[in-house]
Amino acid sequence: MIFLTRRATFSASHYYWNEDWSAEKNAEVFGRCANRHGHGHNYTLEVTVAGEPDPVTGFVVDLKWLKDVMEREVLEAYDHRHLNLEVPEFAKLIPTTENIAIAVWKRLEPAVTGVGGARLSRVRIYETPEIFAEYRGGQ
Amino acid sequence: MIFLTRRATFSASHYYWNEDWSAEKNAEVFGRCANRHGHGHNYTLEVTVAGEPDPVTGFVVDLKWLKDVMEREVLEAYDHRHLNLEVPEFAKLIPTTENIAIAVWKRLEPAVTGVGGARLSRVRIYETPEIFAEYRGGQ
Amino acid sequence: MIFLTRRATFSASHYYWNEDWSAEKNAEVFGRCANRHGHGHNYTLEVTVAGEPDPVTGFVVDLKWLKDVMEREVLEAYDHRHLNLEVPEFAKLIPTTENIAIAVWKRLEPAVTGVGGARLSRVRIYETPEIFAEYRGGQ
Amino acid sequence: MIFLTRRATFSASHYYWNEDWSAEKNAEVFGRCANRHGHGHNYTLEVTVAGEPDPVTGFVVDLKWLKDVMEREVLEAYDHRHLNLEVPEFAKLIPTTENIAIAVWKRLEPAVTGVGGARLSRVRIYETPEIFAEYRGGQ
Amino acid sequence: MIFLTRRATFSASHYYWNEDWSAEKNAEVFGRCANRHGHGHNYTLEVTVAGEPDPVTGFVVDLKWLKDVMEREVLEAYDHRHLNLEVPEFAKLIPTTENIAIAVWKRLEPAVTGVGGARLSRVRIYETPEIFAEYRGGQ
Amino acid sequence: MIFLTRRATFSASHYYWNEDWSAEKNAEVFGRCANRHGHGHNYTLEVTVAGEPDPVTGFVVDLKWLKDVMEREVLEAYDHRHLNLEVPEFAKLIPTTENIAIAVWKRLEPAVTGVGGARLSRVRIYETPEIFAEYRGGQ
Repeated sequence: MIFLTRRATFSASHYYWNEDWSAEKNAEVFGRCANRHGHGHNYTLEVTVAGEPDPVTGFVVDLKWLKDVMEREVLEAYDHRHLNLEVPEFAKLIPTTENIAIAVWKRLEPAVTGVGGARLSRVRIYETPEIFAEYRGGQ
Repeated sequence: MIFLTRRATFSASHYYWNEDWSAEKNAEVFGRCANRHGHGHNYTLEVTVAGEPDPVTGFVVDLKWLKDVMEREVLEAYDHRHLNLEVPEFAKLIPTTENIAIAVWKRLEPAVTGVGGARLSRVRIYETPEIFAEYRGGQ
Repeated sequence: MIFLTRRATFSASHYYWNEDWSAEKNAEVFGRCANRHGHGHNYTLEVTVAGEPDPVTGFVVDLKWLKDVMEREVLEAYDHRHLNLEVPEFAKLIPTTENIAIAVWKRLEPAVTGVGGARLSRVRIYETPEIFAEYRGGQ
Repeated sequence: MIFLTRRATFSASHYYWNEDWSAEKNAEVFGRCANRHGHGHNYTLEVTVAGEPDPVTGFVVDLKWLKDVMEREVLEAYDHRHLNLEVPEFAKLIPTTENIAIAVWKRLEPAVTGVGGARLSRVRIYETPEIFAEYRGGQ
Repeated sequence: MIFLTRRATFSASHYYWNEDWSAEKNAEVFGRCANRHGHGHNYTLEVTVAGEPDPVTGFVVDLKWLKDVMEREVLEAYDHRHLNLEVPEFAKLIPTTENIAIAVWKRLEPAVTGVGGARLSRVRIYETPEIFAEYRGGQ
Repeated sequence: MIFLTRRATFSASHYYWNEDWSAEKNAEVFGRCANRHGHGHNYTLEVTVAGEPDPVTGFVVDLKWLKDVMEREVLEAYDHRHLNLEVPEFAKLIPTTENIAIAVWKRLEPAVTGVGGARLSRVRIYETPEIFAEYRGGQ
C-alpha cells in the first residue's frame, strides 16, 4: 500500500460567529476571529490517496487527474471566496480548520473512491504554517 | 553598516476594486480579486533596519523593541482585519501588495528613524510565498 | 475524529554525556555533541490533539488555550534554557530528540487529557529541519 | 515507541515510458514526463525508524549511523544519476514517486532491521514540495 | 520605486561538460555533474520588476501578465526539458546556475522592458534551496 | 556580474552578557538571552560572492570550493560550539546576530578575495527564520 499526497493552496476569507450567541459572547470565545468584516488565510490543502501502484503506469492514481479533482471539487468553490458567505456548507457551520478538513473530505470522497482501486486516506488543511487539522474519514 | 531584519505575519482580508469603474471593468482587470466579499492571505512582513552595531550591546536596534514597534504600528491595525473596510489608508487606495509595502513603510518610518542611529532600510511584504513586494523609501 | 496540530518553537542548549563513561567513550559515541560547553538548536514542537469538533464552536480544542498550555508546560521551562543544566528531567536523562519528545508528552498529557473530550495524540520534536522524533504515548 | 526520522536530498533525472506502448500512447498518458531526454528533480527522502530509546545513549538508533546507511544504500546509487538508465531496479520499472518509495524501502530494510531493536517504519519521498509518496512496508 | 517579485518552479535535467576537455578533465573539474546521462533539479525562478504602482490599479505590473510572460518565455522552453540537449542557448554554453540566470534575463528582458513603465530588475535562480545565482543585467 | 550564493547551517550556543554591567542591568537589557548557562540556535549562513562566470566552466567560483572554505573557515570553529566560550572573537564581543555576520565576513574575506576574480559580496546570518543580519563589508 502506497500513500500518495498532493498539495494545493487557496486564499479565502472567513470569520467565527455563532448566531445563537450575543456579540459579547462571540467576542469572548472567538476573540479577533469574531470580526464580521472577515479576515483571511493562504490555506494549504494536502490530499492523500492510498492504493497499490498500477503495474503498467506505476501510478496509484494519476497526479494530474488528482490535481483536476482537487481544483474542480474544492478550489473552484473555496479559492478567492469568503467561506461563510459564499460556500454552502459554511452557511451555518463555522469554518474552523477542523470543519474545513471534514468539508473537503466530503467534497473529495465521492470523486476519489474506487478510482483505480484507490481510496481517499487523509485530508490535511493548514490554516497557517503553525496550525493544521487532519481528517481520515469516519474510521 | 549592518542590515538587520525581523519577520512577522498577519492574516487579513482584502479585495481589488476601483470605484470609478463598472463591475465588468473591475472583473476584467482584477479577475477573482474583484470579489466584493473579500478573500484573504497570511501575509509575511519583513522589516530591515540599517545601522552600526552598538559597541556596548552589539545591537543595531533591540529586536524586542523592533517587534513591539511592528506590532503597535502595523499588526494591531492589519491583523485579523479587512484591509479595505477597516484600515484608513486603504479606504480609497487599493490594497495591492505594492501599496501595502508603501503603507507599512509610512507607518514604521517615523517610529524607527533616528533610534540608536539606525534607519528604516527596507520593507518587504509576501502576499503568498510566490509573490512579494519591496519598498526602500523615496530614495 | 479530527487531529488538530499546533506548532511552537524554542531555542535551547544541550550536550550528550553519559556520566558512567570516560571522556574518551563519550567523545567516541557522541562525537561533537559531547562538547560539555553545550551547543544549541531552534527546536520546533508540534502537538496534536484528537477529538470531535464541538458542534457549537467547531473546535476540537481552543487553539489559544492549547498555545497557552504549550507555553506554560513546556516553553517556560525549555526556551532559552540549557536542557541538561536547568530542566529537571534532563539532570540524568540525556536530552536526545527522542527523550525530549517523551518528556514533552509527560508534561502535556495531564494538562490536555479530558479537556472537551480531546486527548493528546502525538508529540513531534524537530531538532533541525532534517531530524525529528515523534511519540504517541504508551500505546 | 519512538518514531525517529532523518531527511536527506538527492538530485536525479528520470522519465516515464512504458516500452509496451507506442510513442503516442506514452505521450497521452505521461504528458511532458514522457520526454526521453529526461527531466529532473531535487528529491527529499525521509526515513523513519521505530523503536525504544536505548537507556544508555537515549538513541533509538545513532543518527550518524542512519545517515551513513542512507548515503551508502540510496544516495550513492541515486544522487546525480539518471534513474531509468543507471539504477538497476528502474531498468524496467517506471521511476514514479510511488515506485521510488518502495525501491528505497527495499534498499534500506535489510540494513536497518534489527539494529538496536529498531525497525524501518516509513519511507517518504518528495518529488517536489507539492507531491510525495509514502511506503510503510508490506503491513 | 517598488520591487515586485514573482516565483515559479520548473524541473529540468542538465550536466556539466566542456567539449574541449578530455573525459578525465571533465570528471576532475565537474565531479558528479559531469555524468553524461544527466541529473536534474526542481529549479525556483524569482523574477523582480521595478517601477511605480499605477495609481489606477495599484499594480507595478499585472502579476497575472507577469506569470504568463514567465511561462511563455521561460517555462515552456525549460520545464521538463534536458537543458543541454533541448534548449538552444545551452547547446554550447554550460547550464550552470550562473549561466541559467543570465539566459533567463535575456529571455525576459525584451518582453518586460517598458511595460507600464516598469523594467526588469533582478532574476534569481535556485538550483537547490542551498544554492542560488542572481543577475541584475549589465549594470 | 553574477551574485552566487551558498547556504550552510551550524548549531551553536551563546548568551548575551556585558562584563561591565551588573547582573540586574544584563537581565534588564538582554532578558532571557542573559542566562549564563547559554541557549542555542540552528544558524543558517548565506555567503554571496560576486563576479563574472568563467567562460570555460560557467562558474563564478566552484561551489564545491566555496563549501570547503565555509566549512574550514567558519563551521569548524562555530558548529557545535559555545560561541562565547570557545570562539576567540567572541571572548569579549557579544555574539549577537549582527556581530556574527561581521565576524564571518572577516573569516571569509581573506580566503575568497581574488579567487578567480570574484569578491565576497554579502554575508547573511539567520538566527531563526524570523531574524537575520546582513553585512556587505566596509562599503
